[in-house]
Amino acid sequence: MPQKDTITNYFKSLQDNICQALSAADGSTFVEDSWKRPGGGGGRARVIRGQHIEKGGVNFSAVHGVLPPAAARSLRIGELETSFYATGVSIVLHPRNPLVPIIHMNVRYFELDGGRCWFGGGIDLTPHYIDRDQAQWFHEQLKTSCDRFHPDFYPRFTAEADDYFYLPHRKETRGVGGIFYDRLEPGYEGLDKQQLFEFTAAIGETFAPTYLQLLDWNKDKTYTERQQEWQQLRRGRYVEFNLVWDRGTKFGLTTNGRTESILMSLPPMAGWEYDFQPKEGSAEAETLEMLRKNMKWVE
Amino acid sequence: MPQKDTITNYFKSLQDNICQALSAADGSTFVEDSWKRPGGGGGRARVIRGQHIEKGGVNFSAVHGVLPPAAARSLRIGELETSFYATGVSIVLHPRNPLVPIIHMNVRYFELDGGRCWFGGGIDLTPHYIDRDQAQWFHEQLKTSCDRFHPDFYPRFTAEADDYFYLPHRKETRGVGGIFYDRLEPGYEGLDKQQLFEFTAAIGETFAPTYLQLLDWNKDKTYTERQQEWQQLRRGRYVEFNLVWDRGTKFGLTTNGRTESILMSLPPMAGWEYDFQPKEGSAEAETLEMLRKNMKWVE
Repeated sequence: MPQKDTITNYFKSLQDNICQALSAADGSTFVEDSWKRPGGGGGRARVIRGQHIEKGGVNFSAVHGVLPPAAARSLRIGELETSFYATGVSIVLHPRNPLVPIIHMNVRYFELDGGRCWFGGGIDLTPHYIDRDQAQWFHEQLKTSCDRFHPDFYPRFTAEADDYFYLPHRKETRGVGGIFYDRLEPGYEGLDKQQLFEFTAAIGETFAPTYLQLLDWNKDKTYTERQQEWQQLRRGRYVEFNLVWDRGTKFGLTTNGRTESILMSLPPMAGWEYDFQPKEGSAEAETLEMLRKNMKWVE
Repeated sequence: MPQKDTITNYFKSLQDNICQALSAADGSTFVEDSWKRPGGGGGRARVIRGQHIEKGGVNFSAVHGVLPPAAARSLRIGELETSFYATGVSIVLHPRNPLVPIIHMNVRYFELDGGRCWFGGGIDLTPHYIDRDQAQWFHEQLKTSCDRFHPDFYPRFTAEADDYFYLPHRKETRGVGGIFYDRLEPGYEGLDKQQLFEFTAAIGETFAPTYLQLLDWNKDKTYTERQQEWQQLRRGRYVEFNLVWDRGTKFGLTTNGRTESILMSLPPMAGWEYDFQPKEGSAEAETLEMLRKNMKWVE
């Protein structure tokens, strides 16, 4: 069964491979910022301000130490003093062209004293303008990767993404969803630790080819000032989700986490306008109509 | 003693007077959006996209009904089913020129079944670039208004503002503070309801002349692109405070409050950059050094 070093090294190489692929596609390089966590471990934050990716972060981290009480509560594992090990890769990319979607990916592994461990992860897409065919294609990529491991994974994890990436105060989903899963412990649906690791690796490896295809389809499309303004408003919603509703962000910011890593997800710029209403029948209005749960992009 | 209708009408006229003064100074008009609250009451949101005030909101509301359980918990008044009445004026102004500060004001009155009631309020200033003399002058205006009612009010309420307008994840105050007070019930420091009403009115009336003076001093100063970029980053911090830490915003968004009114405080645009560090000795670095508690702008 894979040990934490194997998983950690895999995540490091995943970060390397994704950065290399994005860098080549964008024609720009990442800047690396290595950091250490006072309580143990650290990470490699890599950021890009590119030609097509206006602001992006691809972060690897592997941290360990004594589990803070707040974290224990949040994980619902009681108040036991225990040590933990957590490693993962987190990505958010904000494209320059409003016709290219924002994307988010996270894969992670968590281990406690005494051998309890689990995997989590997901990929979700936030188009400023929803293209039905592309949203469907995106979901098909995720489904294909999920189906290799279990037929229930895609429908179950896409429903979890719908529930998670939701802004109750706007009655909108963040985007077209994707998949989201957490706490997959060895034995989950009959999969052992090696198989769950492979599943998480498969999701990690679905990221680059999928996003590069979406980038390629859209990056050279011309766009208008109105579309850019709409992009700023949609980025504003992204900020609202991350700062108000995202459990990881909230947890990190209120428990003395590493602020710059946590907020790497925020866009380069975002806008707000009082009670903005798109014109009836406009592309903006059409997108709003699709920002709801249970769109069933693929069956 | 003033009844809720008197207080409500006073807040309405305060909104009128402030809008008129800001409108004249800016050369632009407010657009009004009246709204009703399903459970009872409503408000008049007034927004400006002006020449000097890039985005501003001056909101009056008076709402009533049965106190939602979440609100009762948050007010620490137990789980009694009780009806409430709440009225107030809330303002946030985001100026176009980075050398003009952002300002926030709120004055409010709250009443429960059975006669319990209190006042709350405050004004605080968030300069993108802190000018020591102007920060001191701003605090002097507040102190003068407070001192008319009680010598302890200014020092006590400025300490409360320092504590409240603070971003733990950045280890920064939001700006240069101001005053903040809440739950002033009749009898507080020997003041009766009429006197507490007058105090709150005095704070409300300190707002327009103070901000117009700050606007006048700074609005025609020339500024650079770098200063504008810094303004976007400071606005990003403003967004972080409001969405992550502000109790009112959090409470409103998670209890089905009126989203557009609550988020009227957000800037027209805001920016984020990974781990931005201003140059040593720059005006930006000097401002950062002053964004801390207990600056004692006036003694």
